[in-house]
Amino acid sequence: MSQVNQSKIYDYVKQHGSILEEYLETLGAFGQLEEGGIIRPVYSPQWLDAQKQVAEWMNEAGLAVRTDGIGNLWGKLEGTEGGKIFASGSHLDTVKGGGKYDGGLGILSALVALRFLKEVYGQPRYSLEVVALCEEEGSRFNKTFLGSRAITGTLPVEELDENVDPAGISIRQAAIECGFDPSQLEAARRSDLDGFIELHIEQGRLLDDAKLEVGIVQAITGTRHLGVTFEGQADHAGTTPMDLRKDALVAAAHAITRIQAIPLQMGRPAVATVGKLSLEPGATNIVPALVHITVDIRHSDQAKKERLISEIELACREAAASQGVTVHIEQHQDRVPAPMTPAIINLLQETADELGITNMPMVSGAGHDSQVMVEQIPTGMIFVPSIAGRSHSRAEYTPLQEILPGVALLAQALYKLAY
Amino acid sequence: MSQVNQSKIYDYVKQHGSILEEYLETLGAFGQLEEGGIIRPVYSPQWLDAQKQVAEWMNEAGLAVRTDGIGNLWGKLEGTEGGKIFASGSHLDTVKGGGKYDGGLGILSALVALRFLKEVYGQPRYSLEVVALCEEEGSRFNKTFLGSRAITGTLPVEELDENVDPAGISIRQAAIECGFDPSQLEAARRSDLDGFIELHIEQGRLLDDAKLEVGIVQAITGTRHLGVTFEGQADHAGTTPMDLRKDALVAAAHAITRIQAIPLQMGRPAVATVGKLSLEPGATNIVPALVHITVDIRHSDQAKKERLISEIELACREAAASQGVTVHIEQHQDRVPAPMTPAIINLLQETADELGITNMPMVSGAGHDSQVMVEQIPTGMIFVPSIAGRSHSRAEYTPLQEILPGVALLAQALYKLAY
Repeated sequence: MSQVNQSKIYDYVKQHGSILEEYLETLGAFGQLEEGGIIRPVYSPQWLDAQKQVAEWMNEAGLAVRTDGIGNLWGKLEGTEGGKIFASGSHLDTVKGGGKYDGGLGILSALVALRFLKEVYGQPRYSLEVVALCEEEGSRFNKTFLGSRAITGTLPVEELDENVDPAGISIRQAAIECGFDPSQLEAARRSDLDGFIELHIEQGRLLDDAKLEVGIVQAITGTRHLGVTFEGQADHAGTTPMDLRKDALVAAAHAITRIQAIPLQMGRPAVATVGKLSLEPGATNIVPALVHITVDIRHSDQAKKERLISEIELACREAAASQGVTVHIEQHQDRVPAPMTPAIINLLQETADELGITNMPMVSGAGHDSQVMVEQIPTGMIFVPSIAGRSHSRAEYTPLQEILPGVALLAQALYKLAY
Repeated sequence: MSQVNQSKIYDYVKQHGSILEEYLETLGAFGQLEEGGIIRPVYSPQWLDAQKQVAEWMNEAGLAVRTDGIGNLWGKLEGTEGGKIFASGSHLDTVKGGGKYDGGLGILSALVALRFLKEVYGQPRYSLEVVALCEEEGSRFNKTFLGSRAITGTLPVEELDENVDPAGISIRQAAIECGFDPSQLEAARRSDLDGFIELHIEQGRLLDDAKLEVGIVQAITGTRHLGVTFEGQADHAGTTPMDLRKDALVAAAHAITRIQAIPLQMGRPAVATVGKLSLEPGATNIVPALVHITVDIRHSDQAKKERLISEIELACREAAASQGVTVHIEQHQDRVPAPMTPAIINLLQETADELGITNMPMVSGAGHDSQVMVEQIPTGMIFVPSIAGRSHSRAEYTPLQEILPGVALLAQALYKLAY
């Protein structure tokens, strides 16, 4: 680590950082459930109220506020020279029963960073923007990354009409009801951004376990979802000897033990998870004839991801064959790994070291808007810890003192880029 | 095998056996479903119609017909001497979507046997009775063996009021609506029976595979049902490294592979089956926190059954420990193995050999009224083949020529006992 040379902005973050906690509490009340946790689907009343609150804070911070046609909220700190624009932010929507850090923290950290930079250094040379992205989680329409895909020009216009919520309301209709103009989708595209940095809680426990302040994301993992169906034969559990059975559940069980062992042997960050299992006929005294499982497979290295998938598919076939049952494998989703931009990674790494912020390179095992942004815009991510790795849960928690180093890193990196 | 000495009654069965097929077809129409298969829950209109039909056939055969307080139907061929009474029969109810052989064949085989014995030999020395037992499957009240438990005096009177069907109707109420008098439960007890023989399809494929005509049941298997709950921790499937997980489904999968391997290694007739599995939270991208499985364990030897249970429980505990999850095991049902009465086994074995009927000793892996009857009455069972072992299914099938040797064995055994 280079010699520690803490910046004016880090000192300012430490002194005034409690405003972030106030913002988090206030934003976290929009969509709060009685039993705890938040539900804030895109374009819902509670989502719209939350957006208006963020807009008000942007105004208070002296930013120029606007929304685009899909419903992203932007707050701009104009530069003196122009020519370059850098942005930071995250998503405003939440999963059902989610916590107040996921998404919200990235928006508010960017807002605080810009506010503090302005207070300490005045107007920047290049423009800085905060963005509250309208939708990341697929919180209402089962379509993810609406905001970042509009920004990068990768959201097909047909999606606005083809996708409806459980009440039958389309994306377009819901956006219009919120006062946006989705016919301006093309105008929401930002070809003028020169960099994007997203701060997010880790959603895992590696930083918390390692007692380090931030993670510098090197890549966002690639994902493949498989649907695997084992088909055997229903038989009477009392009258069919073990050696004459075609038990679909035993086949699935053999597969599941291998689906765990293969990534375990490959090592981090390889993961594979069977999260759902259904079976037929499902009676205590009948040998299962049909078992369906889902497999979620992830790796940040595309070649290793493909190897992982091949080995898991082979394991499913071998498990089926060992029990005399047939197997059918479907691929439901595929996302290639998204490496972050080396220049942004280096900027964050060097800046963290300069500030004496303890850090480690990390892979994101969860998806983020940054994986969409990086397709068009130099992009990087800062992770702050999640206590015990709690995520997508009301139990999600990070104390302020474990957030502020990440905010200082974000502010100092933006300072280097824009001042 | 002793020298073959086919009896007059076996010849008569061969000549007139097609009446059994007519009976089977007619009885199988009561409760027939549009999509095939039969639904004939106890005390239902279709069950009552079926009972009336059997009563009519009993009358035609010259038997003295009566029902008891719980709804068993009896047809008696009075003996010249009295002093002993022997009975044969099976159950009238069916599982949902069951076939026409299960239960029905045992009633009709007994009816045909008595009719033919009377036609060939006239009145017996000791009385013979056919019984259509009201309920074996738990077809309506989730309580099994109503008829045989009433006969052996092991049906607690409280059960009549405590158990209701999905519509809220109690056993007592349903029986009364059918015209029975359940206050006469005690009178339904038969302390005067000197032997009981039940003919039934095997419900497995061993006889069909072995191409043998009958099985002589040595014992009805003992059963234990376990409910096993594995409790781990829900985690994000993308952000939680494999080595930090407490995956309840992986633990269950390890257990399931062992639950198959242990009885396989012990050998026939040991069986163990996981027929149901449910998990929480059940999302593609969340590590399962809670998995519940059922385990159906059976063996006809009590000591081996207990060893099987112990080894399976140990395997569940080891599987849980290997994944750092906790396990909780509940015992939901326990039935000790029911060995058939040696004198009846020997009678059936010797008679089959005398008649040249190919046979083998067998264990019943399914439960039968005979396991209740044998507690009070010398009891034995004859199995006839089930083609491909199909059972509790509309696909259940045995051609007439594979039934008649069993009927002849039953008739000749009753002849030896009663004439």
